[in-house]
Amino acid sequence: MMSPRSGISLDPWFDNYADRAAGLSASEVRALFAVASRPEVVSLAGGMPFVSALPFDRVRASVDRILATEGATALQYGSGQGLPSLREKILAVMAEEGIRAGVDDIVVTTGSQQGLDLVAKLFINPGDAILAESPSYVGAMGVFRSYQARVEHVAMDEHGMIPAALTERIAHLRTAGVPIKFLYLIPNFQNPAGVTLSATRRVEILDIAQENGILIVEDNPYGLLWFDSPPPQALRSVDEGGVIYLGSFSKTFAPGLRVGWVVAPHGIREKLVLASEAAILSPSSFAQMVLADYFDTQDWKSQIDTFRGLYRDRRDAMTSALAAHLPDVEHTDPAGGFYLWLTLPEGLDSKDMLPRAITELVAYTPGTAFFADGRGQRHLRLAFCYPEPDFITEGVRRLARVITEERELVETFGPAHSEVQAAANLESPPPEVV
Amino acid sequence: MMSPRSGISLDPWFDNYADRAAGLSASEVRALFAVASRPEVVSLAGGMPFVSALPFDRVRASVDRILATEGATALQYGSGQGLPSLREKILAVMAEEGIRAGVDDIVVTTGSQQGLDLVAKLFINPGDAILAESPSYVGAMGVFRSYQARVEHVAMDEHGMIPAALTERIAHLRTAGVPIKFLYLIPNFQNPAGVTLSATRRVEILDIAQENGILIVEDNPYGLLWFDSPPPQALRSVDEGGVIYLGSFSKTFAPGLRVGWVVAPHGIREKLVLASEAAILSPSSFAQMVLADYFDTQDWKSQIDTFRGLYRDRRDAMTSALAAHLPDVEHTDPAGGFYLWLTLPEGLDSKDMLPRAITELVAYTPGTAFFADGRGQRHLRLAFCYPEPDFITEGVRRLARVITEERELVETFGPAHSEVQAAANLESPPPEVV
Repeated sequence: MMSPRSGISLDPWFDNYADRAAGLSASEVRALFAVASRPEVVSLAGGMPFVSALPFDRVRASVDRILATEGATALQYGSGQGLPSLREKILAVMAEEGIRAGVDDIVVTTGSQQGLDLVAKLFINPGDAILAESPSYVGAMGVFRSYQARVEHVAMDEHGMIPAALTERIAHLRTAGVPIKFLYLIPNFQNPAGVTLSATRRVEILDIAQENGILIVEDNPYGLLWFDSPPPQALRSVDEGGVIYLGSFSKTFAPGLRVGWVVAPHGIREKLVLASEAAILSPSSFAQMVLADYFDTQDWKSQIDTFRGLYRDRRDAMTSALAAHLPDVEHTDPAGGFYLWLTLPEGLDSKDMLPRAITELVAYTPGTAFFADGRGQRHLRLAFCYPEPDFITEGVRRLARVITEERELVETFGPAHSEVQAAANLESPPPEVV
Repeated sequence: MMSPRSGISLDPWFDNYADRAAGLSASEVRALFAVASRPEVVSLAGGMPFVSALPFDRVRASVDRILATEGATALQYGSGQGLPSLREKILAVMAEEGIRAGVDDIVVTTGSQQGLDLVAKLFINPGDAILAESPSYVGAMGVFRSYQARVEHVAMDEHGMIPAALTERIAHLRTAGVPIKFLYLIPNFQNPAGVTLSATRRVEILDIAQENGILIVEDNPYGLLWFDSPPPQALRSVDEGGVIYLGSFSKTFAPGLRVGWVVAPHGIREKLVLASEAAILSPSSFAQMVLADYFDTQDWKSQIDTFRGLYRDRRDAMTSALAAHLPDVEHTDPAGGFYLWLTLPEGLDSKDMLPRAITELVAYTPGTAFFADGRGQRHLRLAFCYPEPDFITEGVRRLARVITEERELVETFGPAHSEVQAAANLESPPPEVV
């Protein structure tokens, strides 16, 4: 591996980059993931939704209808804020989670990732602190880092972020004079930990944020994908003035159209529209109209129910296999979403172990990807969203073999001094893995 | 109109924004454009391509084929750099303009606007200078401003940017100690001026950039839309190491899919991919596959030829009407693209005149939108891309009436002291107007 500094000799424009570009370097994990995409590898790394469960013929009907009747609008530039017809549908989708808003409150984005990028661009000066769960979404930390934020992790347990830890962290940063720009949360079936913020803690965290004048950014791509019962109310449904809400069609429909949205308080929303126009002029009219038509004419609620059943079966396959093959290894117990978080036995390092796992034809995402500060070596994220249940079972069996062998090595020779090797920087896994 | 400061009382998060958000404010021109979109107004303001000339049934055939055979891929996340199959087609499109590149050199973006945003994010520190034509593309200046760049206009005439003026500006900035990050150029049928950089000047400007170690960003959405003969060679076709090239499907196909691309030297390209993944994860697989299929199966060269003829007729309608109704008013003579640049008689102000023009049911874009420094009051941009020729003729007739009346007013009462009123900031017209 070459160090970033070696870029000096390879890239004649190296000295011209903005300061914020320093954070943009590909990690060695990317090369491993390229190998992991081979068909014989069971990948428990990727966060790809299982789009094959969608009714492609009905999507085609939507596209055909639009091109036949509104082709010239679908292929043209649109409004920077997004098409009103789609924003109407978004209100209906959010109503399923108890969120009330107006058509004017919504900004349609190129996936909710662009929403995150715009929010980060709007608020982050270099050195500003962003509070996040511990661990947190790798794609969010990548965005925050690209605007030179300082990500401050707040401890969490199986009920989500711990309010006392949040209070402590805020006080610490205030004393140090570091501006806190917002608190970034994934309250439901969190990526990567698979835990859900409890109802009590939602209230406590909202109170803490209000008392301290801290904006909340609530990222909720998985909220409708619950397995047994819906998660507690969205933070946005309680506090309209202090929460920016990020929504996505990537998990309830499909990521290939790249459509998400932001709901924001009035003043912020106005600036988001202008920032989005600077970045992309307008979101795709074609994609928005296909989605609006699909959500207008199809039974999308049943489709989401289909997804729920499908992911529930896969979660069950994974937890059963873990109980059978790794009975004494700790992991979270997700009640929805795509992910489960596993804690390795003492002395093991998930990043060091990854090449061996891939040799054994199973892949996962090392825990260090989800921390801004080099932690996470003893953790890894397992995704149960994409492979069929039998493959999940086989993947966990392979992983169990790798962990058992690794544990025997450690017991014989001692740990591989992995803490020393772990770089205090974020990984940049490829997009299909985040 | 309220001043931006009044936001303090309206937006409780006003003090939390990043410094770069200060540039994000909607101009009063936006409200006027909302009125201008009424059907009875002939809009010569909008830069919307005439997509109704596309064969919608063949686009539908491409979509149907993709959903029938590759639906699960089209609806899934894709590579951050873009699908290789589309990048192959992009090579074929660029070959039409003499540009040779490899599939690996290309980064697919959400319209070329996102390419501009990524380049700006990668290079601009607050206060850095960006050199641009005078006037320049409003959407580019909006992006540069959003990263707190200082846009430095370089004089141009009917042959494009003047090399001696470029040398002078570089020397001036170097003396002042201002870092120059790149030279932004639209060499072909420039937006808004409608002029083309001559072959001789291309060589001179490349030499000046090389001598001074200045990167060139070549924005070329209109290059294939020439009316009589192709423009001179692209700068990228001469200099691979010193030019970032931005391409777009918005004018040769349609803007509604939001697909453009960047060709960049190796080191820059690697960082662009990582920056794009941070911003949007990956461009739309669906949109990319529709485009790849269309460019694979359809006679896209004939389609571009159709567009050429169509826009040539509209340019002719506009220049004939100008000759008939405003014979002594100066304007450029575009040999391709969408726009013509008009200079008003002394004492007239295009921004002051706009409400009156809209009352007379014709709209245009005031010249101040295309300068970062408040200049352009005596200029306006006329777009001939969207209205049918008869409407263009009628629009120019109405504009002539407005100018004539305005001129009479000025001759009677003197100029309206418009220089005092012009704000030294950029306009933010809505996306369909840029």
